[in-house]
Amino acid sequence: MKVELRQNERMDDLHRNGYQIIQNPEKFCFGIDAVLLSGFVHVKSGAKVLDLGTGTGIIPILVEAKTDAGHISALELQEESVDMARRSVMLNNLEEKISIVQGDIKEASHIFEGASFDVVTTNPPYMIGKHGLVNPDLPKAIARHEIYCTLDDVVRESARLLKMSGKFFMVHRPYRLVEIINTLSKYKLEAKRIRFVHPYQDKEPNMVLIEAVKGGKSRVTIEPPLVVYEDVNVYTKEILEIYGYE
Amino acid sequence: MKVELRQNERMDDLHRNGYQIIQNPEKFCFGIDAVLLSGFVHVKSGAKVLDLGTGTGIIPILVEAKTDAGHISALELQEESVDMARRSVMLNNLEEKISIVQGDIKEASHIFEGASFDVVTTNPPYMIGKHGLVNPDLPKAIARHEIYCTLDDVVRESARLLKMSGKFFMVHRPYRLVEIINTLSKYKLEAKRIRFVHPYQDKEPNMVLIEAVKGGKSRVTIEPPLVVYEDVNVYTKEILEIYGYE
Repeated sequence: MKVELRQNERMDDLHRNGYQIIQNPEKFCFGIDAVLLSGFVHVKSGAKVLDLGTGTGIIPILVEAKTDAGHISALELQEESVDMARRSVMLNNLEEKISIVQGDIKEASHIFEGASFDVVTTNPPYMIGKHGLVNPDLPKAIARHEIYCTLDDVVRESARLLKMSGKFFMVHRPYRLVEIINTLSKYKLEAKRIRFVHPYQDKEPNMVLIEAVKGGKSRVTIEPPLVVYEDVNVYTKEILEIYGYE
Repeated sequence: MKVELRQNERMDDLHRNGYQIIQNPEKFCFGIDAVLLSGFVHVKSGAKVLDLGTGTGIIPILVEAKTDAGHISALELQEESVDMARRSVMLNNLEEKISIVQGDIKEASHIFEGASFDVVTTNPPYMIGKHGLVNPDLPKAIARHEIYCTLDDVVRESARLLKMSGKFFMVHRPYRLVEIINTLSKYKLEAKRIRFVHPYQDKEPNMVLIEAVKGGKSRVTIEPPLVVYEDVNVYTKEILEIYGYE
């Protein structure tokens, strides 16, 4: 093996191309949201892709496996995550395809060239502010709460970095939908495709997948519900396919 | 019977309180959207309600049957519809509860007193402009297309007519969701509850029910999908209940 695992780290199989990912369960592990986002994105052959707030690199690695993307850049603030993501890229021999860059989402349009990406993906912190957090500097808190960047930051920087007609893909929480749509509109990203993720068929959604187009016209498709479980601990066929278990 | 039917008119049973409605199938008959909206609204006891673009009065009659609303006003532009709605109100002995007013939605806040309603309901024309219409003056065209009023008109007048914290309920088309949310926000109506109506469980929604609150805080609940058919020509239990068939 060409990469080393550090203390508490483990290697998980991604069920795609034999790819694996290095994670530290004491810090932060990717969730179903990142996997569902990777199944929601449409990336044209050769497209230049950027993932904002990549964590341990789950989205770029899955997008590389599932699409014909040209090159994928991925930005992450936290040093430990950057280090894990870079080793996962090496582990999967993807150094030519994926670049992990350390930096702040708020500064993304200074780190990368403006209007230079065909696609931006992001699984940003969902929760507003650091209300109630005892340790806002813990990696999990930073990944989940808007401590270092807000929804507005993520959308603004994405809009600046996308080419005209470029596509923005985000997973977020349904309760913030109004704010999400208003913020997208503010930065001329037009939501074109929305899919709600429901834990069960007859329950409220707890995630939302959104595709927006820079400078797009106003007409949105709400897709059929994406249902996670068909019974307790039993994934639906569609979820099994997205995870690559079938 | 205390009211007369005119040529081509018929009387339909509403499966609520023995209520009936007069319709003319040559002009325009109410659809499932009006019925679903009546099942979606929450009206507090004694509330003052206004229905904008009431057509033959289906929404005020159903809301009267299903809630403890105080008084319901209903505005309609087309003279024939106003006439049918007034006769349906008489037919059901609802003259004390429901007032049908002839007038233009665009002028609604001049016809009624501003900030005077607890609830506004509306099933407005869905389709943008009169593109492709051969006869834009036909009743059906006026009810379905934004010929005499736009989404912006409906939302603006509703916002003016609602008391602070008053509730706005609308049924519309999902493909216009982004525009709907942006327009609500423009007039300080905050979408708080959204429910998509899917013809079948695994299909895209073709209607959306929205509740917004004047001056509300930003946090929206996306409700579980409302599914119309469980099989070809077989309504789901929930739809049968909303229609009052069970």
